[in-house]
Amino acid sequence: MSNIFAEILTIGDEILFGQTLDTNSHFACEKLSEIGVKIVRKTTVGDTEDEILKALGEAESRADITIVTGGLGPTNDDLTKPCLAKYFNCDIRINEQALQEVSSYFKRRGRELTELNRLQAALPSACEMISNPVGTAPGMWFHRNDKVFVSLPGVPHEMQYLIENEVIPRIKRTFKLPVIFHKVIKTCGIGESFLAEKIRNWETALPPHFKLAYLPTLGEVKLRLTATGSSFEKLEAESETLVNDLNNYVSKYIYGYDEDTLESKIGELLAGSNLTISTAESCTGGHLAHSITSVPGSSRYYRGSIVAYHNDIKNEFLGVSKEILSRYGAVSEETVLLMAENVRKSLGTDIGVATSGIAGPEGGTKDKPVGLVWFAYSDKNGTEAKQVQFLKDRMFNIQFSSKAVLTYLFRKLKNVS
Amino acid sequence: MSNIFAEILTIGDEILFGQTLDTNSHFACEKLSEIGVKIVRKTTVGDTEDEILKALGEAESRADITIVTGGLGPTNDDLTKPCLAKYFNCDIRINEQALQEVSSYFKRRGRELTELNRLQAALPSACEMISNPVGTAPGMWFHRNDKVFVSLPGVPHEMQYLIENEVIPRIKRTFKLPVIFHKVIKTCGIGESFLAEKIRNWETALPPHFKLAYLPTLGEVKLRLTATGSSFEKLEAESETLVNDLNNYVSKYIYGYDEDTLESKIGELLAGSNLTISTAESCTGGHLAHSITSVPGSSRYYRGSIVAYHNDIKNEFLGVSKEILSRYGAVSEETVLLMAENVRKSLGTDIGVATSGIAGPEGGTKDKPVGLVWFAYSDKNGTEAKQVQFLKDRMFNIQFSSKAVLTYLFRKLKNVS
Repeated sequence: MSNIFAEILTIGDEILFGQTLDTNSHFACEKLSEIGVKIVRKTTVGDTEDEILKALGEAESRADITIVTGGLGPTNDDLTKPCLAKYFNCDIRINEQALQEVSSYFKRRGRELTELNRLQAALPSACEMISNPVGTAPGMWFHRNDKVFVSLPGVPHEMQYLIENEVIPRIKRTFKLPVIFHKVIKTCGIGESFLAEKIRNWETALPPHFKLAYLPTLGEVKLRLTATGSSFEKLEAESETLVNDLNNYVSKYIYGYDEDTLESKIGELLAGSNLTISTAESCTGGHLAHSITSVPGSSRYYRGSIVAYHNDIKNEFLGVSKEILSRYGAVSEETVLLMAENVRKSLGTDIGVATSGIAGPEGGTKDKPVGLVWFAYSDKNGTEAKQVQFLKDRMFNIQFSSKAVLTYLFRKLKNVS
Repeated sequence: MSNIFAEILTIGDEILFGQTLDTNSHFACEKLSEIGVKIVRKTTVGDTEDEILKALGEAESRADITIVTGGLGPTNDDLTKPCLAKYFNCDIRINEQALQEVSSYFKRRGRELTELNRLQAALPSACEMISNPVGTAPGMWFHRNDKVFVSLPGVPHEMQYLIENEVIPRIKRTFKLPVIFHKVIKTCGIGESFLAEKIRNWETALPPHFKLAYLPTLGEVKLRLTATGSSFEKLEAESETLVNDLNNYVSKYIYGYDEDTLESKIGELLAGSNLTISTAESCTGGHLAHSITSVPGSSRYYRGSIVAYHNDIKNEFLGVSKEILSRYGAVSEETVLLMAENVRKSLGTDIGVATSGIAGPEGGTKDKPVGLVWFAYSDKNGTEAKQVQFLKDRMFNIQFSSKAVLTYLFRKLKNVS
């Protein structure tokens, strides 16, 4: 089995100017690695014909597959199509299927098809069109002398949709890839180095065809196990044994696997027990509600939130008395306990959770610095509160606060602590 | 004045595997562009000596300055230093100043200096050391035949510190740089191609030393104007004239410039007029509140949200009668009008906005498909509602719904429509 090599070529002055963070090439690297394609290089060039043509040639000399993103908009600064036409020595002409698709895209939205929009259906004649149901610029697939070039729009959600639904399946059909098995184990409530210490013996004993990677994200650490071999079923069975064994070390931190999210697992636990939940938010300002409702079908268990940004709302809608607010402050155990208990009662749910903290950058004091957050959990057995101290960054404090509540909620629902 | 060209070379298997998002090169591009250095290419290669050496040679052929990040840790898989020593044909030896600095770094933290740490002070003898007060791996500055190579550690906060405090000042001292001026004009409520058509005459008439780029993001299009010349003040004045002229074409779509966000501009307008606002959310599920409260200081004008995910909450907290809910449905003009008006009244704010829609992927019907969203705006002069139709993807429907409300709100506050 020989390796299949790929190169990612991102096109755009806005990336070289440092105005746009390139997340597309990261996504492409991740998805191609998952199916056993080896990425040899990532390159970004600007909107300059000469640079694009050189980069295409260099990529072809190194890689079997070149993924090109960006530069497909209808405006003047987008050069990807003319460059690909030149590289493949063909003309650019209206692709009838692409025209039909872009026309119906605009028709569905009740918008007029302009001449610029129409030009998005003009493609190098050497390519096979890749339909783009989530945008107006189609993708392109070129196949010449065992080498494949794929061109995708730079808008991240369009590019991601096409990679997952069109490009990966085509690559699997076109190339003979090694058998690879991935298992992602998702943990919350433990930092990377502590997790590494707890599972050291397990990690050391992994068979040589298994590789482990630690992928820390906001308040979570994912462990990715990658196995290479000749039989998918064999790798899957070996992986299952290893994951069972891992549970002996750190089961209380594992919330799920692969596509699971902490929010979706909480949703499953709530729906499975016929429990409903409501939220009362101050410092998280709606982010906690948004996290919970990001899960499809969350209306089965989620009833709503009182986002009580102003103290009057805490008083009028969540029954936090003015006396408590002035005596202990909005960011206090007393306030957050009442918020959680009263939102549960007034929204008529089994569980209520609440947050109150100082997100920053202003509003901190010596006793209550920026990043101080109280959160509470309430059910029919009682109400309890926890205090956490985060850092200086506002968005980080909002996001970490939501994650801390969700981690706590998950453990309560699983009866682990 | 000739251009000074730079290339960014990032080294690390973890980036090519898609495990780590490369934010370092983005930061370097931004800071170098700000001082008028033109970035010609960004390249990422893996931890392979051959690849690194090739990439160094290619960069030298294209650029005056090559910034190398990553691969400076003390472990075996870090190859940057041996490769640079080979490239500059020199040995690696302990740099006394570096040793002193890394020793005192560990001493300050009360930690022992291990042999691995000591090796961080070993540098290619051809380089000038760049002190790193925020970490243990020093930076390196190589200068040969008018070409500069800079090697920096890959830990983002160390790399960023060194770029800003060491590398940028040295580059300014070493090269004669052109003067560059950037202006970003931010629009909402219009798509890229429609915007391009409206400003075509303006764009065509731009002076040749001005370049324009379209940067579309979720529900917004940013226009980036970049000017090169010899006087900053002259470019700034010319840019101001051009932007004033642009306002004659599309002022109603322009919400701000440079660091402005739609949420922050709305906040300025509200705070400037002493107006307060509240939200009532169904399909956006807290995302609208989160967007508004992402702005520091939003507590001056934002009072809170009723996230009424369940119809009972729309009834009990927002006064949408059961009759209206059963006759017109939760996703209807009638419901969303009442939500906006009643949240405004019951939270005691000047303005109330509301959303109700079908985020999907489930819950659509023939009459009310997934992606159908109603939103409403209410103030003392009355309440009005709008209907929009988005697509199938849940997260996009949520995010686009929030953006549609914010765009509408901005226009109401600016009195444009």
